[in-house]
Amino acid sequence: MKSKKELSGWRLKLYEIVFEADTKYGRIFDITLLVCIMVSVLVVMLESVIEIKEQIGDWLIGIEWFFTIIFTLEYALRFYIVLEKRKYVLSFFGLIDLVSVLPTYLGLLLPGAQSLMVIRSIRLLRIFRIFKLARFIGEGQSLALALKASRHKIIVFLITIITSVIITGTLMFLIEGPTHGFSNIPKSIYWAIVTMTTVGYGDIAPQTALGQAIASFIMIMGYGIIAVPTGIVSAEMVQQKQKSKVTTQVCPHCLKDGHDADATFCKYCSGELN
Amino acid sequence: MKSKKELSGWRLKLYEIVFEADTKYGRIFDITLLVCIMVSVLVVMLESVIEIKEQIGDWLIGIEWFFTIIFTLEYALRFYIVLEKRKYVLSFFGLIDLVSVLPTYLGLLLPGAQSLMVIRSIRLLRIFRIFKLARFIGEGQSLALALKASRHKIIVFLITIITSVIITGTLMFLIEGPTHGFSNIPKSIYWAIVTMTTVGYGDIAPQTALGQAIASFIMIMGYGIIAVPTGIVSAEMVQQKQKSKVTTQVCPHCLKDGHDADATFCKYCSGELN
Amino acid sequence: MKSKKELSGWRLKLYEIVFEADTKYGRIFDITLLVCIMVSVLVVMLESVIEIKEQIGDWLIGIEWFFTIIFTLEYALRFYIVLEKRKYVLSFFGLIDLVSVLPTYLGLLLPGAQSLMVIRSIRLLRIFRIFKLARFIGEGQSLALALKASRHKIIVFLITIITSVIITGTLMFLIEGPTHGFSNIPKSIYWAIVTMTTVGYGDIAPQTALGQAIASFIMIMGYGIIAVPTGIVSAEMVQQKQKSKVTTQVCPHCLKDGHDADATFCKYCSGELN
Amino acid sequence: MKSKKELSGWRLKLYEIVFEADTKYGRIFDITLLVCIMVSVLVVMLESVIEIKEQIGDWLIGIEWFFTIIFTLEYALRFYIVLEKRKYVLSFFGLIDLVSVLPTYLGLLLPGAQSLMVIRSIRLLRIFRIFKLARFIGEGQSLALALKASRHKIIVFLITIITSVIITGTLMFLIEGPTHGFSNIPKSIYWAIVTMTTVGYGDIAPQTALGQAIASFIMIMGYGIIAVPTGIVSAEMVQQKQKSKVTTQVCPHCLKDGHDADATFCKYCSGELN
Repeated sequence: MKSKKELSGWRLKLYEIVFEADTKYGRIFDITLLVCIMVSVLVVMLESVIEIKEQIGDWLIGIEWFFTIIFTLEYALRFYIVLEKRKYVLSFFGLIDLVSVLPTYLGLLLPGAQSLMVIRSIRLLRIFRIFKLARFIGEGQSLALALKASRHKIIVFLITIITSVIITGTLMFLIEGPTHGFSNIPKSIYWAIVTMTTVGYGDIAPQTALGQAIASFIMIMGYGIIAVPTGIVSAEMVQQKQKSKVTTQVCPHCLKDGHDADATFCKYCSGELN
Repeated sequence: MKSKKELSGWRLKLYEIVFEADTKYGRIFDITLLVCIMVSVLVVMLESVIEIKEQIGDWLIGIEWFFTIIFTLEYALRFYIVLEKRKYVLSFFGLIDLVSVLPTYLGLLLPGAQSLMVIRSIRLLRIFRIFKLARFIGEGQSLALALKASRHKIIVFLITIITSVIITGTLMFLIEGPTHGFSNIPKSIYWAIVTMTTVGYGDIAPQTALGQAIASFIMIMGYGIIAVPTGIVSAEMVQQKQKSKVTTQVCPHCLKDGHDADATFCKYCSGELN
Repeated sequence: MKSKKELSGWRLKLYEIVFEADTKYGRIFDITLLVCIMVSVLVVMLESVIEIKEQIGDWLIGIEWFFTIIFTLEYALRFYIVLEKRKYVLSFFGLIDLVSVLPTYLGLLLPGAQSLMVIRSIRLLRIFRIFKLARFIGEGQSLALALKASRHKIIVFLITIITSVIITGTLMFLIEGPTHGFSNIPKSIYWAIVTMTTVGYGDIAPQTALGQAIASFIMIMGYGIIAVPTGIVSAEMVQQKQKSKVTTQVCPHCLKDGHDADATFCKYCSGELN
Repeated sequence: MKSKKELSGWRLKLYEIVFEADTKYGRIFDITLLVCIMVSVLVVMLESVIEIKEQIGDWLIGIEWFFTIIFTLEYALRFYIVLEKRKYVLSFFGLIDLVSVLPTYLGLLLPGAQSLMVIRSIRLLRIFRIFKLARFIGEGQSLALALKASRHKIIVFLITIITSVIITGTLMFLIEGPTHGFSNIPKSIYWAIVTMTTVGYGDIAPQTALGQAIASFIMIMGYGIIAVPTGIVSAEMVQQKQKSKVTTQVCPHCLKDGHDADATFCKYCSGELN
């Protein structure tokens, strides 16, 4: 956030503690926060287990409220410190920070809404800030870049899958019919997805010889077709690696390029590189 | 279609609207068509759900006929506009356009045939025409090219899989036998496919120790062997990426292209490149 | 077989027909043979289906004997023609040719042995001889080469998998125990293989919380670890592609290498290549 | 171990036999040991099968004690020979050697603890020492290196998976609820892992339309997302292969290595390479 420069005094210090993880107290703050998030997510999970809820349910609700109040205060603090409030509120983490405190309050009106608190787990992504932030964000971006570069290929791939799945699903509905569990087309399409992605629950399975033949076909298709997105992403990443390896620097003496990033002298003419 | 050049006046305009997506009206026509296709496919799906059919079945049949008539008119229009009618009728999309209106009419004679209308979903592939057509067709072609280049390797791979599956299936039929669900060889082969592709329904599963040992073997085989087509396609795509690094420069002497980025002279005729 | 040169006259012709697929009659012979193999494999499969056997079982047995006699004669013929008889009998296809006629005869003594006739399906591999043999054998060899080059990595990978599976299986036997289907260690190991290879039948599934936690762990491990053999094979194939792309030819004028296989002139100095 | 140099006489010889596999007796010792390990692991497995235990249980217990005593003696011998005892005891194989004899003794106190003896199977990793050790350790290290180099990307990937699985699991708990087997959040998360890794047991499966829709979504996500770690590892291995193309030449001036095959001058100090 650019607004950091305009901060000063204790407000700047608070900003560095709450929003960053480079200073000592910043790290302590972030690690404490992470532990709180993990514990509160765990509490929500445990609360859903009936046997545990019956025994220590009251304790869990207490802890839940405790963390909710802490996170509410934290949100208020972040909102107070930051200068560009609009930008923070609408940012990805700003929204998540807000959404992760709401379910407990909503739970007062709508029973069951507390479970939505596990959305807090998204806050765990803050973990990347603590240990060597730049490194991880860099890796994340390089992954995102590779996926972005191959998005057209991936869309073509997905539409092919979806079309195959719709047509196979319908075929199976006609062949197997409701008596064998393929009770309607959406359910048959669901089965086709379960099969093609090689998940294979077995809650619905073809019974007729023809149905099994078609199922075999899309299994082999689904099994082999995974090679396509894998190939796309691999090729993209190989290229990214190669790009980052060789600098675009040109030797000022012989004008040849293709020098490694760690080269000090031209490997062709021994001239010094910049 | 080359015949476009021979069209003129309102017929050319209609051609651009109906067959292309570069003009404003062409885009509107194609988007409207896509929405119609999606809605009509959805209607067919909903109609197969008994609970929904009982409630609003008459409405759905009405909508179905509405779209069928629209698509029939659209087909007639396309047929009328195009000059090389034979070529259009026999083209991939020409056939799909025809086949996607037939099921409703067939449904009058054969109950159940309407479900085949989901073939209409193939028409959704027209979607690529709307947003940056060239880009997507290019990506699709590059995928197809990579698959084509590795087709020999893929056939060798498929025949290996099929032979393994036939032999394993028969072995399991002999070992497990009809009492454990392996009631005949084709069914055992079906089981082998389910297992080797890692789908694993569990509708048939080996019970004897020997059967489970063999199953374990082909699971590990199927699990590892997927590396082969993946490797093939990856290698093909990496190469394609690198090829595209080849400059698009054409030799000014012999007009051949495909020169490396570091080439100074044409590798075919020794003429100097720019 | 080198012995071909020593053949002459009608025997050479027979050799070319029976063992090769380059002449017209050779192709006809091989295609006829393939059809016979496919039909006879199909007959064995059909015979295992009780409903079909009850109806046309006698016919199927007749056809089975018919093909067995044909294949026996074919084997005798091959044995008679070839000069290096020992070498043929012990060759891969020689053994398969023999083994694929034995089951029918064995079936006279041991009922059920006929099913082994599907071993004949291995003979289908002869298919590669018919259409552009060299091409396919080349591709097959290139696959085999890539696998061979990475065999050390693959063995390391396999031993890691096997050790993981033995230890996880035993752990699950201790945690879940016979009451949840993990009745003994070998069966628990079978379950671990089913899970790690992502097959997941569901015939045995963990019931306790701890068991499900461990299962989750090896699922994610199995899901991610497939990247390892895939990466190995991909890297091997990428390298193979690159090796075959660039000739090792050195320009006789400027002594630079790295020329494409289709280059006539040096791309650096325009000198003619050999 | 550096301490080898300080050994002499019969102690050096014993060291070479027990700890190495380069001499004739060293190989014999290691192969014998491996066979013992395999047999003893097998015995533990068989003992867990009730039918077998009832018949030859006493024999198996006898064999178990026989091997345990042998392995105890072996451990004592190793401990006695080695000079840096502390280093051996705390080394990976030192710990495994100890842990693999303990369960039998523990079994005297705690029934069932013997099953832990399969930990002995880890000792099978010693197998790499026997046949061309260096080769395999090299391959293993190159695998480990590739995984290490991409560990940041893999952590980003894993955290994405875990977050997705927690959120999807909770959503499914809210949608499907305990009546359909999603009895609490941890169990729903377990289901999400089973589905996303494409294992798909089918012990829990969504029943409602919305649940099946979400399941379909994460299946396709899980099916496609495997391309990411595969791409990461592939790219890493391709690069490793290419790095090894880098010559092993050391600059005669600054003694640095890592020069490309086409380098004439050292890229670090501009000295001429040989």
